[in-house]
Amino acid sequence: MSRKLFELVGSDATRPFSPYCWRTRLALAHKDLSVETIPWRFTQKEMLAPYKAEKVPVFLDGDKAIVDSWVIAGYLEDTYPDRPSLFGGEGGRAVGRMMNWWADIVVVGGIFPMIVADIPSQLLEVDAAYFRANREGRFGRSLEEVAAKRDEAVVAFRRTLEPMRQTLKTQNFLGGNAPNYADYAAFGGFQWARAVSPFRLLEADDRIYAWRERMLDAFDGLARKSGGFPV
Amino acid sequence: MSRKLFELVGSDATRPFSPYCWRTRLALAHKDLSVETIPWRFTQKEMLAPYKAEKVPVFLDGDKAIVDSWVIAGYLEDTYPDRPSLFGGEGGRAVGRMMNWWADIVVVGGIFPMIVADIPSQLLEVDAAYFRANREGRFGRSLEEVAAKRDEAVVAFRRTLEPMRQTLKTQNFLGGNAPNYADYAAFGGFQWARAVSPFRLLEADDRIYAWRERMLDAFDGLARKSGGFPV
Repeated sequence: MSRKLFELVGSDATRPFSPYCWRTRLALAHKDLSVETIPWRFTQKEMLAPYKAEKVPVFLDGDKAIVDSWVIAGYLEDTYPDRPSLFGGEGGRAVGRMMNWWADIVVVGGIFPMIVADIPSQLLEVDAAYFRANREGRFGRSLEEVAAKRDEAVVAFRRTLEPMRQTLKTQNFLGGNAPNYADYAAFGGFQWARAVSPFRLLEADDRIYAWRERMLDAFDGLARKSGGFPV
Repeated sequence: MSRKLFELVGSDATRPFSPYCWRTRLALAHKDLSVETIPWRFTQKEMLAPYKAEKVPVFLDGDKAIVDSWVIAGYLEDTYPDRPSLFGGEGGRAVGRMMNWWADIVVVGGIFPMIVADIPSQLLEVDAAYFRANREGRFGRSLEEVAAKRDEAVVAFRRTLEPMRQTLKTQNFLGGNAPNYADYAAFGGFQWARAVSPFRLLEADDRIYAWRERMLDAFDGLARKSGGFPV
């Protein structure tokens, strides 16, 4: 049965950068499920219309289309129960919902203003124009204004990661000895940043830096082999 | 086999207030294990010395003494595997470590400056003097100065709870349909505040307020029956 994943890319079709698509990509690797990836760009709305979707990830499993990274994770867990579990039981799945929101709000939301001004240069011209107009409309400011104070913002951002940093004192991954979906949820944000921006989010002596290295190495370096700036 | 729990109290021995002791108390209720509680006050260090502990909770299970709320939770899960699980599997336990840190840092750490100045009035004189000197030494400021901006601080505090608020849009508890240890970790902070301070932490239309009501009602109103200010 054929599996396909629409992934957000910029001018380089081999450098997918959506934090949410990366969650799905790693979840599929965790389940040891092969997938054909289909590059998708911001302005290619018509490509997703058949699946009643406007955003990626969109995952096609045979004749089924599944939209939204959290929904896809639940689908994979339920559909492939004999493969390694993404959550490690029902408690992990329930609490994983909050880990996913934490990653959305604290990691992705925290990183966004710091890297947003670097994104247009990674996109085709038509997508860069769309992205700038859309996001500047949302912020009511230029992307460059949003990013202007990132040297201060990054200090506060690192502080908000403290619960994760403390956790990594006694275990290598949020999932324990091996990563689970909570790791993919958080890592997606860092992989997104790495793909589009040279801005340094973590200091080298941070436990979260070491965790990110482990995540880059996971699944034979799946994330590290994908294009990115040095971190 | 006799089970005992040392719990932090103030002048009213029936109003335990430590956020960490409440985690243990609820974990014991979750496991349906009865326990005799022993009131303990800040300056009664000698009572804990036999157990090589300086802080509560200290849990005695027959001839075993277990110290630290997270360690106690793991002990209960491992020692009473046939009772309802606190974590819902190994994934929930691993990720529960981060939920516990999140509760420590964001919930307990966020609440602390807002209620700290209200604590001495709940204590016996000797404990109030100890508490004030100890905490003011730690802060380098009077408790009243620490609490002075709480009307502003509470707005920021509520914002930091956003991942939990979003989670509660689609499930009644962090643990899913029923509470698990992640709920007890977070709720401990709110129950502590309720026991010692009239300060209003949550607005009535907040989903977290509704969750707190459910937690107050859990286990036949175990937490609600304990002394506290209106919330």
